[in-house]
Amino acid sequence: MADQDAQTPVGIEPPALSVLRWDEPPGGPAVVLLDQTRLPAEEAELVCADVPALVRAIRMLAVRGAPLLGIAGGYGVALAAARGEDVDQAAELLGQARPTAVNLGYGARRVAREYRAAVGSGLVPEAAAVVALAEARALHQEDAAASGRMAQYGLELLAELLPGRGGYRLLTHCNTGALVSGGEGTAFAVVLRAHRGGSLRQLWVDETRPLLQGARLTAYEAGRHGMPFSLLTDNAAGSLFAAGEVDAVIIGADRIAADGSVANKVGSYPLAVLAKYHHVPFLVVAPTTTVDLETVDGTSIVVEQRSATEVTEFTSQPGAPAGGGGGGRAVAPPGTQAYNPAFDITPSELVTAIVTEEGVISPVTGVGLAELCARSSQVTIS
Amino acid sequence: MADQDAQTPVGIEPPALSVLRWDEPPGGPAVVLLDQTRLPAEEAELVCADVPALVRAIRMLAVRGAPLLGIAGGYGVALAAARGEDVDQAAELLGQARPTAVNLGYGARRVAREYRAAVGSGLVPEAAAVVALAEARALHQEDAAASGRMAQYGLELLAELLPGRGGYRLLTHCNTGALVSGGEGTAFAVVLRAHRGGSLRQLWVDETRPLLQGARLTAYEAGRHGMPFSLLTDNAAGSLFAAGEVDAVIIGADRIAADGSVANKVGSYPLAVLAKYHHVPFLVVAPTTTVDLETVDGTSIVVEQRSATEVTEFTSQPGAPAGGGGGGRAVAPPGTQAYNPAFDITPSELVTAIVTEEGVISPVTGVGLAELCARSSQVTIS
Repeated sequence: MADQDAQTPVGIEPPALSVLRWDEPPGGPAVVLLDQTRLPAEEAELVCADVPALVRAIRMLAVRGAPLLGIAGGYGVALAAARGEDVDQAAELLGQARPTAVNLGYGARRVAREYRAAVGSGLVPEAAAVVALAEARALHQEDAAASGRMAQYGLELLAELLPGRGGYRLLTHCNTGALVSGGEGTAFAVVLRAHRGGSLRQLWVDETRPLLQGARLTAYEAGRHGMPFSLLTDNAAGSLFAAGEVDAVIIGADRIAADGSVANKVGSYPLAVLAKYHHVPFLVVAPTTTVDLETVDGTSIVVEQRSATEVTEFTSQPGAPAGGGGGGRAVAPPGTQAYNPAFDITPSELVTAIVTEEGVISPVTGVGLAELCARSSQVTIS
Repeated sequence: MADQDAQTPVGIEPPALSVLRWDEPPGGPAVVLLDQTRLPAEEAELVCADVPALVRAIRMLAVRGAPLLGIAGGYGVALAAARGEDVDQAAELLGQARPTAVNLGYGARRVAREYRAAVGSGLVPEAAAVVALAEARALHQEDAAASGRMAQYGLELLAELLPGRGGYRLLTHCNTGALVSGGEGTAFAVVLRAHRGGSLRQLWVDETRPLLQGARLTAYEAGRHGMPFSLLTDNAAGSLFAAGEVDAVIIGADRIAADGSVANKVGSYPLAVLAKYHHVPFLVVAPTTTVDLETVDGTSIVVEQRSATEVTEFTSQPGAPAGGGGGGRAVAPPGTQAYNPAFDITPSELVTAIVTEEGVISPVTGVGLAELCARSSQVTIS
């Protein structure tokens, strides 16, 4: 098993990633993003000075990941308010930038509501814009705090599920760290807390075809923190399970239905089946805003089918062709059709536990999920 | 589910692929190969006029696949004999060209033995060279015949396992067609016979990371024959099982141990676990020469670990860097380590049946395997 040779010693922290920030240069306010389509080759910032620029950045996946999209939506509405533009129209534009990202519309609507309330209470637009920005910042901070609580709950759960281990060997899929969050992420935040506490023995990083978020983004984040990690093709995970090299699987979620079914990046479900077969815990880490109680069960979750070109062509910036425009180098014969679902659904019976900022649900049941969500003020608003 | 739109009507056969042939142009004899590293973009032949050229072609994966490598080894020794070169040295060079390909050494040794016997019986070297070539041709024809018998046995097995289906939806992994065989292949030969008989409803083709043999080669072969097929990332197979879209998994094998454990391209084992979980038959199609009774069980099979660059870089000719020289476009941060086993091992309890040219073993047991191999003259020679 190949381990990471050159790693940052535990205790030396890299500077926090500036993934998304509000800036007020002389030219006017802007939302400044780390352009994720250029990672890991380049850490470049993208300055969005108006809402259409931010919508373009969201569509091209320069900014991505459910929690972070919610924050982007919030700041986008604050940007419209600061520029004296139509705030409701901005919220609608942002909410529609990507159809499946529930959090995006949530963040945009939440800040627009605060703006309207401020105007309704007699504030001048300039003052209401300040209120809107404060609400976006609050959303950002809440997400960072939720990330921290999930990390703590997740680490406690690992200790409970895997007693007496010298260190955990964790397998993850897709990207769930600071690049998708106001804080340090969801599943990756748990891994990072384990690493900081000296209890991460190995992180196995699935490359996550077709868009390679594991190879491009999770490997980048793991490397920054000096974690012991190795990258693998998604189908090599089976060999690791068979060799007893995986203590737990830990992933995020894009949507959790009322019955506890988890929609996440395609490839999660095969890992859940492998984990079940090998009696390895399968953990999902996600904020309560990811729970969608209006979606009754897994079969009700609509899975986005994406362009065949994501599979039949290789692009130098895998995240860039959001709509699937092709333009890459062909790896399959011309005209080859592809089956390319973006997500898959893991039923609750294959999920050992769901870790949220409000606590852990295990076993995963609809009743447990509803009770936990009732404790969260956020989930009722989405 | 996306199906192949433009397909050749059933009954119209494409010309047979000339994957490997003996040629005698005025300049002297040669082994002529279809250069598989240039597929699917280009159908180019590679002329190997001496043994070192053929060894280079084997190392760069211009010719690949267990049965075909055996044939290449046989013709390579015939080539040395025709050129008046040291036949035993040629057999050794060829046998060592790729360490894990058992068939390669088998083919080379078999033809060298016939050559020595001919010389020993008093033939002049020129006449013995003719005997050697005849033996290589016999090996080639035997493999083609074995392919045909496997196809027939496989099709009968499908009818038995899946009665009353309007057509089969089969999932395959890696490449097992004419490109690896003297005939029409192993698992792919079964699929092709089903297609010709009108009983193939859909072929699901795993792309097969990291070297994309499914995307590059199986999609190419399926397209040539006008099969209804779709390509998918390896990790999307889980969604197909969950949706009930897979009637059977059908793959080849690189080595089968005495207990029935199957070594095959990495990603086969996760498919076997998914198939078990979803009560879908998991079929292995391989000639008896693939059975290695001297390897006691699955844990005794040494799995080749390949270069990290196959995972961390994307190359335009994925098959080319056999030894893993890199030189492609990086998809992961510099210095990223990778876990990259070339094969995985599927234990016999997950294999519904093994289809050989001597018949079908189901359930798969060591005793059944030994009995079947005793009926084959070839297996005792390896």
